Amino acid sequence: MSRKVCIVVNSRANYGRIKTVLTAVKNHPDLELQLIVGASALLHRFGNVIDVIRSDGFEPSAVIYSIVEGENLTTMAKSTGLAIQELTSQFENLKPDVALTVADRFETMATAITASYMNIPLAHTQGGEVTGSIDESVRHAITKLAHIHFPATEKAAENIIRMGENPQSVHITGCPAIDICKNVDKNIPEDFFRKYKGVGPGLDPFKPYMVVLQHPVTTEFGEGFMQISETLEAIRQFNIQVVWLWPNVDAGSDDISKGLRVFREKYRPDNIHFFRNFSPEDYVKLIGNCRCIVGNSSSGIREGAWLGTPNVTVGSRQFGRECSQNVMHVGYKRDEIEEAIKYQLNHGVYPSDHLYGDGHADERIAEILATAEFNIHKKLCY
Amino acid sequence: MSRKVCIVVNSRANYGRIKTVLTAVKNHPDLELQLIVGASALLHRFGNVIDVIRSDGFEPSAVIYSIVEGENLTTMAKSTGLAIQELTSQFENLKPDVALTVADRFETMATAITASYMNIPLAHTQGGEVTGSIDESVRHAITKLAHIHFPATEKAAENIIRMGENPQSVHITGCPAIDICKNVDKNIPEDFFRKYKGVGPGLDPFKPYMVVLQHPVTTEFGEGFMQISETLEAIRQFNIQVVWLWPNVDAGSDDISKGLRVFREKYRPDNIHFFRNFSPEDYVKLIGNCRCIVGNSSSGIREGAWLGTPNVTVGSRQFGRECSQNVMHVGYKRDEIEEAIKYQLNHGVYPSDHLYGDGHADERIAEILATAEFNIHKKLCY
Amino acid sequence: MSRKVCIVVNSRANYGRIKTVLTAVKNHPDLELQLIVGASALLHRFGNVIDVIRSDGFEPSAVIYSIVEGENLTTMAKSTGLAIQELTSQFENLKPDVALTVADRFETMATAITASYMNIPLAHTQGGEVTGSIDESVRHAITKLAHIHFPATEKAAENIIRMGENPQSVHITGCPAIDICKNVDKNIPEDFFRKYKGVGPGLDPFKPYMVVLQHPVTTEFGEGFMQISETLEAIRQFNIQVVWLWPNVDAGSDDISKGLRVFREKYRPDNIHFFRNFSPEDYVKLIGNCRCIVGNSSSGIREGAWLGTPNVTVGSRQFGRECSQNVMHVGYKRDEIEEAIKYQLNHGVYPSDHLYGDGHADERIAEILATAEFNIHKKLCY
Amino acid sequence: MSRKVCIVVNSRANYGRIKTVLTAVKNHPDLELQLIVGASALLHRFGNVIDVIRSDGFEPSAVIYSIVEGENLTTMAKSTGLAIQELTSQFENLKPDVALTVADRFETMATAITASYMNIPLAHTQGGEVTGSIDESVRHAITKLAHIHFPATEKAAENIIRMGENPQSVHITGCPAIDICKNVDKNIPEDFFRKYKGVGPGLDPFKPYMVVLQHPVTTEFGEGFMQISETLEAIRQFNIQVVWLWPNVDAGSDDISKGLRVFREKYRPDNIHFFRNFSPEDYVKLIGNCRCIVGNSSSGIREGAWLGTPNVTVGSRQFGRECSQNVMHVGYKRDEIEEAIKYQLNHGVYPSDHLYGDGHADERIAEILATAEFNIHKKLCY
Repeated sequence: MSRKVCIVVNSRANYGRIKTVLTAVKNHPDLELQLIVGASALLHRFGNVIDVIRSDGFEPSAVIYSIVEGENLTTMAKSTGLAIQELTSQFENLKPDVALTVADRFETMATAITASYMNIPLAHTQGGEVTGSIDESVRHAITKLAHIHFPATEKAAENIIRMGENPQSVHITGCPAIDICKNVDKNIPEDFFRKYKGVGPGLDPFKPYMVVLQHPVTTEFGEGFMQISETLEAIRQFNIQVVWLWPNVDAGSDDISKGLRVFREKYRPDNIHFFRNFSPEDYVKLIGNCRCIVGNSSSGIREGAWLGTPNVTVGSRQFGRECSQNVMHVGYKRDEIEEAIKYQLNHGVYPSDHLYGDGHADERIAEILATAEFNIHKKLCY
Repeated sequence: MSRKVCIVVNSRANYGRIKTVLTAVKNHPDLELQLIVGASALLHRFGNVIDVIRSDGFEPSAVIYSIVEGENLTTMAKSTGLAIQELTSQFENLKPDVALTVADRFETMATAITASYMNIPLAHTQGGEVTGSIDESVRHAITKLAHIHFPATEKAAENIIRMGENPQSVHITGCPAIDICKNVDKNIPEDFFRKYKGVGPGLDPFKPYMVVLQHPVTTEFGEGFMQISETLEAIRQFNIQVVWLWPNVDAGSDDISKGLRVFREKYRPDNIHFFRNFSPEDYVKLIGNCRCIVGNSSSGIREGAWLGTPNVTVGSRQFGRECSQNVMHVGYKRDEIEEAIKYQLNHGVYPSDHLYGDGHADERIAEILATAEFNIHKKLCY
Repeated sequence: MSRKVCIVVNSRANYGRIKTVLTAVKNHPDLELQLIVGASALLHRFGNVIDVIRSDGFEPSAVIYSIVEGENLTTMAKSTGLAIQELTSQFENLKPDVALTVADRFETMATAITASYMNIPLAHTQGGEVTGSIDESVRHAITKLAHIHFPATEKAAENIIRMGENPQSVHITGCPAIDICKNVDKNIPEDFFRKYKGVGPGLDPFKPYMVVLQHPVTTEFGEGFMQISETLEAIRQFNIQVVWLWPNVDAGSDDISKGLRVFREKYRPDNIHFFRNFSPEDYVKLIGNCRCIVGNSSSGIREGAWLGTPNVTVGSRQFGRECSQNVMHVGYKRDEIEEAIKYQLNHGVYPSDHLYGDGHADERIAEILATAEFNIHKKLCY
Repeated sequence: MSRKVCIVVNSRANYGRIKTVLTAVKNHPDLELQLIVGASALLHRFGNVIDVIRSDGFEPSAVIYSIVEGENLTTMAKSTGLAIQELTSQFENLKPDVALTVADRFETMATAITASYMNIPLAHTQGGEVTGSIDESVRHAITKLAHIHFPATEKAAENIIRMGENPQSVHITGCPAIDICKNVDKNIPEDFFRKYKGVGPGLDPFKPYMVVLQHPVTTEFGEGFMQISETLEAIRQFNIQVVWLWPNVDAGSDDISKGLRVFREKYRPDNIHFFRNFSPEDYVKLIGNCRCIVGNSSSGIREGAWLGTPNVTVGSRQFGRECSQNVMHVGYKRDEIEEAIKYQLNHGVYPSDHLYGDGHADERIAEILATAEFNIHKKLCY
């Protein structure tokens, strides 16, 4: 009988980091895919990721509305509690043999708690990495709840083992996000930007453009408006086209969005277009063809390593994450951001670095899910 | 201005392990106590711990009903989700400067997530210890969310640091449960048992008695009825008086209770009395005067070390926990349990071992809470 | 295409009052049954109604744990909120064409709100009746949310219309509980009581017995212990066998249960046996063969009218409900209860009265659900 | 001892309809105000009503985040469930003597259920009125849960009594919204619009303007985009200034907002400014000085009656509500909307009609809350 693998997708970032695994599980003869889509992946404000998922041929077993509106620290926690309540009922009715949770977003903890409390073996991707924000705490806490680990890098695997996990439960698979980098045709079509709507002037995909993506840092809640304003002022010094993605749903998101709206109202920039979402493949095309990716998304580091895209990482959110040479770290001040962008625009593309995987994470993860013996009795391994 | 310390008490076990700290915080000139009482501590079935708390002079800032009835794995997770939702609102309104969570029960995770997500520094007692059941996962996950650690033993502190916590955030304070062992007058009064009601024949505190306390093991859900039946059969071989405490609210509790009720109905034992709860001080008197404590409560190991009470620890729930020489580990089979009890009854009291503290945890913890610099920006310390 | 009819069963009382409709819907060629089982129907303490449901051949589409433990007014409301959260997700995924809710229990409101808010036509049985307790408010509030009404009596139908409902949406079908009264073989087998376990001395179904069933009255919360103690003292005056059912999950249930336990401990009665649950058919046999039914269950009035069972209704819970001549109303005092029981035992069986239906509610309801045009646009009809 | 009156404010509409009562309760010698602010009243997207409340001198006893994001039928129900869970804890801790709920919004039901289930006497304003949308069902269901009624009109009072409420619990007080109409200085200052920001061109308060406010109709979910597009096209035919308020949080709000954004993007109108919120007094000034109010807000009917503002009410949302002669009802088609606006612009101000009150609701309500005997034992009064 097939093993039922329940994968919970909560956001656009989640989806891009697990899509190839969804396919690999769906196609594996010994696995049955149960897909749950929840949280911001269901919301219009974040680009209706659910529509992309469906158009990719995945039909969810269940959808879960769990975001309590407010975008502050209180509602971030409250949304997690609500997600647990919802997931328990879904797991009770779906009865998966293993649950897989992605990375380190706050809602991801809900999947980890629900599965581990319900004696459902928990698999986890992207464990062992190091960053800032609440993600850092969430990621390692999930590692301590998980029964099977799929770290992307050797260093991450080492960290997981040092934290006391059983080495036999740790499998270096690479990150599924890299699978897409490897497989996608990087050529960008002429109508690339038009189909994604968004607001702002039309962009020409064949002319140079930067990509900016700056999320709130939950552990610096209250400083987001100032932080984004500095980045905006830095970006304003450049004339090239800019693709700007709205921030994710983390606490403080409202401050970032407000900063963007105030800026738009004040300067009415004719080179910046704001988007909600891209499909995973188009996102890789987007950053694979840009002159520089700016902000604090891990994609500039992770996919950026493989693609060699010049990157300027702002602030503490990615502090401590393993980086290839394409990454420059700067603080929140406009001047250092501007300087770094100048440097990177001048430098151009970096050589590809397979730091976060070789593009075969999907098949490895599916095979392990199909064959591994799961053991729900954990014990600190020292 | 005083620091507001919010302490969440969820069960009778929680209360005994933190009561001296409640007092120390309440009495500290630079601290203000905010007490939240929730989960099974509010329920009649578990002995109305809230009444004991109030009669000890602590008035809760808020009470939180969060146990979803069912006593299975699904409701254990669901109760945790509900507790998060409730705690967020309380923290939003109470605005504590630091939250303290006790040990490793499933509901405890709710406090840990709520505080850490809300950028409220999180203090944690009993981290770094090793056991079985879901507690093992919960305890270490909380460590990865906590900002300040109060382990009871040197080994536990070492484990916390090995897991990547900043050594400066780790303070070996001993366990507050030991404070009570140190301070309480062990003499047992004549009306000791009468005032706690319960069901079963009257007991004479001046005659020999055993104490039995066997909780479900969540990671062995479904085997509880068999497990408790074995213990019951073992106990049935002895003629001395038995004080039996009903199990806690963990998933599988119904199975244990059913085993106890079926046994009562079948054998109508004239030497076993069933109790719901004792005050922390009376609980120490209870196990400080008994001939043997049997089951899988950590108190047989923790307080037992100090008190020297002969202990028979059954099954996997305490597997891996640091023990003094008073502890004998056995499996679930009636024969091995019976053998071990015989040995321990014959052996008598062990020398006191200060393994879990020297009885001054309360003042140490209060002082650190009053003076430490809290840092909510965590980072894996390797 | 078949219409999907979602029926939510929350308690043992719910189940008995809707079981024949479950069968009729399941067997109707144009209907598809979606059964959700939740609340106390899932709990061991209330007799594992879910097991009876499954053994009757109904497999739930989903189960929903929603009872927040505490059995007080706060948790009664909280459980309703939780049930709404759970039902929304189930309705979102099941997409019923019509939802049916039974009577007036507090959890029933959750079904009513969820369906009506989600534009799912809501059908309601037992509307328009008059009683005490919170049920009175709940029942009429549900009427104002419902789109199709299946009252049991003419008077109830008249009440619904007077409250401003569209007369075309009101169908007098009789109560499905009467269908069972009509169909069941009233002969009681020799092993009748043995198979239901419970606690207390063995009972002989061929000897005379009374049935007692007294629930808390939520609007008199805090008086339950006194109320049940009076009834217990009245019952104690009689020597005949007594079948006592534990109370339902309404706020105050703990007080009633405590009263029963204290009484058992104090008097150790040798003629009273306590049960958790009977199957719907066996319940009809039980009260169809008893000498008198005492307490405040509506079954003494409703099924009692058809069966002619002498009934003593205690207190305000059923105050205002339409009654046949088998019912005597008394207050909470032991003397009046005792007097009334004496009268009823002496009187013997009453003639059958078809006040609450003719035993064909099932087929009528199924047919209307299959053929009616539903209109979700409500408007006060004056 | 003062009676504690707990008033729950969930939205900008709620606040305007109860503000004078907040003041009257706060100032009454025998009453103590407990204010809970929740739902969309806390959200930036709906104009941070909480900030207006605080700047008016009311400090909430508690705030409650309860809106589950999604703005569809599922999340509307889910938000109500969440609000119940939250309110129970607040009522448990605040222990009000009476709770007051306003009108008929979906979240309002949460207050009604929580209070009535917890035996807290429930007072209700705006009961007995007739409209469309889910509000119609919610309003009457709340009437059946409420213990004391403060209808605005004689007809509404009559409806409440016909629904079976005890006439002694029904007090015609007028609507508190009219108190503001009576008291406010209608003169509009020069900086009136500037202080409210919003998006769009600057408006001159001394030049003619219309006000448009069109909410989703939950029972017509899915048709909102079409509906708002028709209204937009009608409005586009006029050159005068337009003040447009974003829709409320009801299911379907996203569709309305999308319609507005698409329109803005397409036509970039230079005479329409979009606002999130006005203070209650400024809102009265706004519609008291406008040439016509268009859409489906009840304010055009309610406050409009007193102010005499020409009104065009679109679609079914207000269908059945008592109206003065200032109101013209039209369907959703652009042509009929345009025609009606032309007629009303041409007609000019209507005579004031005291249909919804005489401006003294506040003192009446406070006095009744201070002196009435509350009876939580309800019974259908026929």
